[in-house]
Amino acid sequence: MPREILVVGSTALDSVETAHGRVTDVPGGSAFFFSAAAVRYAPVLVVGVVGEDYPLHRLEPLKALGVSLEGLEIVPGGRTFRWGGRYHADMMGRDTLFTELGVFESFQPRIPAEARRRPVLFLANIQPRLQLDVLDQMADPELIVTDTMNLWIDTALEDLKQVIARTHILIVNDEEARQLTGQRTVLGAARALRRMGPRTVVVKKGEHGALMLNGERLFAAPALPLEQVVDPTGAGDTFAGGFVGSLAAEAVVDDAALRRAVIRGSALASFSVEAFSLDRLLSVTAHELDERLGQFAALAEFRLA
Amino acid sequence: MPREILVVGSTALDSVETAHGRVTDVPGGSAFFFSAAAVRYAPVLVVGVVGEDYPLHRLEPLKALGVSLEGLEIVPGGRTFRWGGRYHADMMGRDTLFTELGVFESFQPRIPAEARRRPVLFLANIQPRLQLDVLDQMADPELIVTDTMNLWIDTALEDLKQVIARTHILIVNDEEARQLTGQRTVLGAARALRRMGPRTVVVKKGEHGALMLNGERLFAAPALPLEQVVDPTGAGDTFAGGFVGSLAAEAVVDDAALRRAVIRGSALASFSVEAFSLDRLLSVTAHELDERLGQFAALAEFRLA
Repeated sequence: MPREILVVGSTALDSVETAHGRVTDVPGGSAFFFSAAAVRYAPVLVVGVVGEDYPLHRLEPLKALGVSLEGLEIVPGGRTFRWGGRYHADMMGRDTLFTELGVFESFQPRIPAEARRRPVLFLANIQPRLQLDVLDQMADPELIVTDTMNLWIDTALEDLKQVIARTHILIVNDEEARQLTGQRTVLGAARALRRMGPRTVVVKKGEHGALMLNGERLFAAPALPLEQVVDPTGAGDTFAGGFVGSLAAEAVVDDAALRRAVIRGSALASFSVEAFSLDRLLSVTAHELDERLGQFAALAEFRLA
Repeated sequence: MPREILVVGSTALDSVETAHGRVTDVPGGSAFFFSAAAVRYAPVLVVGVVGEDYPLHRLEPLKALGVSLEGLEIVPGGRTFRWGGRYHADMMGRDTLFTELGVFESFQPRIPAEARRRPVLFLANIQPRLQLDVLDQMADPELIVTDTMNLWIDTALEDLKQVIARTHILIVNDEEARQLTGQRTVLGAARALRRMGPRTVVVKKGEHGALMLNGERLFAAPALPLEQVVDPTGAGDTFAGGFVGSLAAEAVVDDAALRRAVIRGSALASFSVEAFSLDRLLSVTAHELDERLGQFAALAEFRLA
């Protein structure tokens, strides 16, 4: 029986331009990407905030998959958080064209009473101060997984350190890992991050996969080599969703379960980038997901003798 | 019974400066790094050229491992090829301080008569024109593996294409793969390279491991995450040495053998960077190598259920 997940994060409308096209005001934000992936494995409840302008019908497919939006606050007369960005031709770099915080600016996450005992908590990338507020509202979750971003390392480091100290599994990208620790190598950074509290650190390396340090055990996960990426937005949140969802569905969160979770997160992220917004994530069938997981196995497999 | 390998490449004296120290006029060059690794698995004969100034006693440990230097031409009165470089603090970039070609400038590889029937040929990174000359001297090797570098892509592309067309397995780094094909993704580049002739393409990605495209089968090999790299010089040639040596020792060069070869090459490369010159490669014991291979297995392993 999978454990129930609570995710607190951004719930946005994205406008994105890549070499493959452009979209305007489509569902985005860390909490939606996360939950579209996590719900493949376990029940998810989203805590976030949108304005009255949100096209709620666009979230019906997410609800149809089983995501609960009962924690989604709709601010009367409020305007939804909007992000606009343009990706470079190589899909590696991107320029932010605009950030309109709207109702997100005064977001105060309120965890519904019945959700405070959820055993699995994902703190998506929001203000560390808010992440601490969420932790204070929760009744000692079994598993706390946290994401963050460079902005908070620059502007809210002390709060962020407190969040990390209370985190079981930290997910960061390689740049953030280096920035947080001052270490040059990914391994050095992962070790330094573990000393800040988490028992497990997952460092995402984009097209180069991920490195997980669980206790002293290292796992190098490949990324699926892709010839075409339509839109990388949300790939990291999708990874986290598959990862946390998978863990929530495991009887025991041991090293083998963690490795499996990294692969499941990677597989779902590889779908996410095939289309804009949540489109591909919402259309993936169980069979397609199984097949993709098999591709990861074939990709990484070797025998020494 | 391992097959015999012939390697044609540079045989140099390197002067290297890294964050961990500096060395002057130490054994280097693609053919020596390659053979120090390959000889762990199969007999190797080196074809190269040095000047009369070469400190030949420094090559005794290589001979002691079983490397044959009978194809090493010593030019009377000649001066050995010297390369000097300084690595940046992050060990990623490097500046070439000097390149003194010496006897390498007029190098005309002469394959000893008894070596022309060797079944395995490694064309290390030298002028494509010379690589073609070597191919013309050989009696149809079973396995031709080729390396190259950006300089020849810029200055000798047509010859290089001919070499690649006659190559069974091409080894390049990710930058070279993109430069050779104009493709943006590693996978796109690997596919385009296969269309140029080789049945198998190995793209080295440094600290991110390697991607092999064998027919339509993809293998993503991890690199061992290292906290300290003393000197990256020769890591790529060492990888090639372990890779080709391993293949020479296999009864059948199938996909499983190729994957094993990538891992063995990676393991030997991970030793090479632990010290300057060939020092660590020459001191690795069979037990240490086995242990390191076990670390690669533990690093990459996962089970989907």
